[in-house]
Amino acid sequence: MRNNRLQEQLQFILEIDKLKKIVRQSPLTDQSRKENDAEHSWHLAVMAILLSEYAKERQIDIFHVVKLALIHDLVEIDAGDTFCYDKIGNRQKLERETQAADRIFNILPQDQAREMRDLWDEFETRETPEACFAAALDRLQPLLLNFHTQGGTWQEHGINRRQVMQRNSPMHDGAPKLWKYAEKLIDEAVEKGMLKE
Amino acid sequence: MRNNRLQEQLQFILEIDKLKKIVRQSPLTDQSRKENDAEHSWHLAVMAILLSEYAKERQIDIFHVVKLALIHDLVEIDAGDTFCYDKIGNRQKLERETQAADRIFNILPQDQAREMRDLWDEFETRETPEACFAAALDRLQPLLLNFHTQGGTWQEHGINRRQVMQRNSPMHDGAPKLWKYAEKLIDEAVEKGMLKE
Repeated sequence: MRNNRLQEQLQFILEIDKLKKIVRQSPLTDQSRKENDAEHSWHLAVMAILLSEYAKERQIDIFHVVKLALIHDLVEIDAGDTFCYDKIGNRQKLERETQAADRIFNILPQDQAREMRDLWDEFETRETPEACFAAALDRLQPLLLNFHTQGGTWQEHGINRRQVMQRNSPMHDGAPKLWKYAEKLIDEAVEKGMLKE
Repeated sequence: MRNNRLQEQLQFILEIDKLKKIVRQSPLTDQSRKENDAEHSWHLAVMAILLSEYAKERQIDIFHVVKLALIHDLVEIDAGDTFCYDKIGNRQKLERETQAADRIFNILPQDQAREMRDLWDEFETRETPEACFAAALDRLQPLLLNFHTQGGTWQEHGINRRQVMQRNSPMHDGAPKLWKYAEKLIDEAVEKGMLKE
């Protein structure tokens, strides 16, 4: 029984190795390639720790934010990364990701499967201060990468200011000071021609 | 003042993007390439959460273990990954990594630079239950990857059982049940010809 439990846990740990293969749109800062979901999740988790003072709610559980950051993209192992400005892809996204969650989290022992699924649901519904802060970081991280690579994904896909403002505005609910900073970056990106007006 | 602080924090967050370029020896489970330090750190952090019940000390602070996992390899941005079975490389490793720590962590505001440096020192000296558990996971993760890729790095570099036992024995101090499991994997690896006797 005990051994079964460890087997299930290790099977899950091996399964999620696949997250390292799910490529996102954002480039690395050296522009050599695009980052993957495992790298992105690590980056968010470190950001959660270092930027916790900017969370809108002062009484926030940062370990909980870190957990959300670490697991929020696991469903993309099956569902793939959906580019945030892809309208058609985003229409079927929830269905694909829910199916993925059903399969992937259930590799774990029941109690941990439940815990991971709850974390993912919480991240998606964005109703807790922790999920709002995690979502803010999930917007800020690619914005930083795009800004520091002369427009990265924005240039590649001809994205404009309105799209970036709309995509990133949830940052206001989770981390208003970071959103204020982000707005300045967006202005500067337009001024410098990295982002279309 | 306030803005300076955020600037320093974001500069550090951009600097550590380079961890995604530091390639380790362990292969991904699909054997398509070797993993990098950012992916490895993410994997360890998730393992810390899911395998916390196997920590030797029951009163362990798992968030602290997760922090150790997330930042333990940052010094490799400057110092590079030193293959654990490389005797010469390991002799100068501490000096190279200490210089790296001095540079990298000091990009942060002073209080956070101190906090990150303390975490790294703690991981290296392995004197707390949290650091012992983090070290155990840092051994288990590549062992799992090597075992599930028909011997991965062991095959590539002609590593033998004695070397793997010696390298992985600290697992006993941090997570004795995981060490027991690891010993079985090592036996099986030798039986199946993945690892030299």
